[in-house]
Amino acid sequence: MTKSVPVGVSARHIHLSQEHVEALFGPGYQLTEFKPLSQPGQYAANETVAVKGAKGSFPKVRILGPARKATQLEISRTDAFAIGVNAPVRESGNIAGSAGITIIGPAGEVTIEEGVIVAARHIHFHTSDAANWGIQDQQLLKVRVGGERGVVFENVVARVHETFALDMHIDTDEANAAGVKNGDTAEVIG
Amino acid sequence: MTKSVPVGVSARHIHLSQEHVEALFGPGYQLTEFKPLSQPGQYAANETVAVKGAKGSFPKVRILGPARKATQLEISRTDAFAIGVNAPVRESGNIAGSAGITIIGPAGEVTIEEGVIVAARHIHFHTSDAANWGIQDQQLLKVRVGGERGVVFENVVARVHETFALDMHIDTDEANAAGVKNGDTAEVIG
Repeated sequence: MTKSVPVGVSARHIHLSQEHVEALFGPGYQLTEFKPLSQPGQYAANETVAVKGAKGSFPKVRILGPARKATQLEISRTDAFAIGVNAPVRESGNIAGSAGITIIGPAGEVTIEEGVIVAARHIHFHTSDAANWGIQDQQLLKVRVGGERGVVFENVVARVHETFALDMHIDTDEANAAGVKNGDTAEVIG
Repeated sequence: MTKSVPVGVSARHIHLSQEHVEALFGPGYQLTEFKPLSQPGQYAANETVAVKGAKGSFPKVRILGPARKATQLEISRTDAFAIGVNAPVRESGNIAGSAGITIIGPAGEVTIEEGVIVAARHIHFHTSDAANWGIQDQQLLKVRVGGERGVVFENVVARVHETFALDMHIDTDEANAAGVKNGDTAEVIG
């Protein structure tokens, strides 16, 4: 059975806690939706912030909503070198001991001690997809992308949930190294 | 037999023709050596140039010497998006129909119609290494890098010459996607 998965390329982005939304945009501020993402209920917000590391900054980082429990900035390793942030490869949500950053919004700024990560590549599986393919939550998969820059990615984390839609998330370094773009297809091979 | 190869990560860089060296740095100018590279006779020069694409520029791109027959700028795909240049993946030297760019030096500027490429990942083999491993010039190899971002790179071009030293060259996107750095080791697996 061929196990094909659509690829979504994640550019640098940030998730904010409601506390930080308000610190950056003003008391009572609520994020507003620009467009929906592949995962149900998630959206790209109209709002952006600047982030500032030891060696540089990015002036316009897209916020993904809705607000979360903890603020988390996801950047590529190329980005991390560019702004001087020593961000570890982590699964989303696993931010203990990760890198810090200063976040600047129109109404204020916030410095976080942890929350900056390079997101570990992963596939979102709906519970039924995972059952069909015999894949367990947190299983590490091998996933192949073909073409002139063909690559097999190892250690792709399976994330299984009944609210997830089938989608593989890689960052811009991974997409560019493999010559893939949003909507291309990858194959789970092991 | 394990076929281990040291990895060299190529940051963006440029090779210049002597004609362009003189157009950019002045009549009769000769590049000067900053430090030697892994391939015998090749060096990083003290000199840098700026390059300017449709959407942005890099102010300081290292020149690699000595001067070559044709000018060639090698950038990552991340770089290509950043400055708005539609550079194809190519082997070094194969620049027909590739992208153009404006190059700016202290004594002048040059616009080339072709010469900007994303270098195809490749391994330099000394003739004796290739013979020992049964590898032919231009053979496409599969090469594995382990670790938390483990990757198998397909379509790695074997380049065999008696002046070459064993070394795998990947760009910064590929290095960052695989979590490898200069001097790490990769393994030819097919």
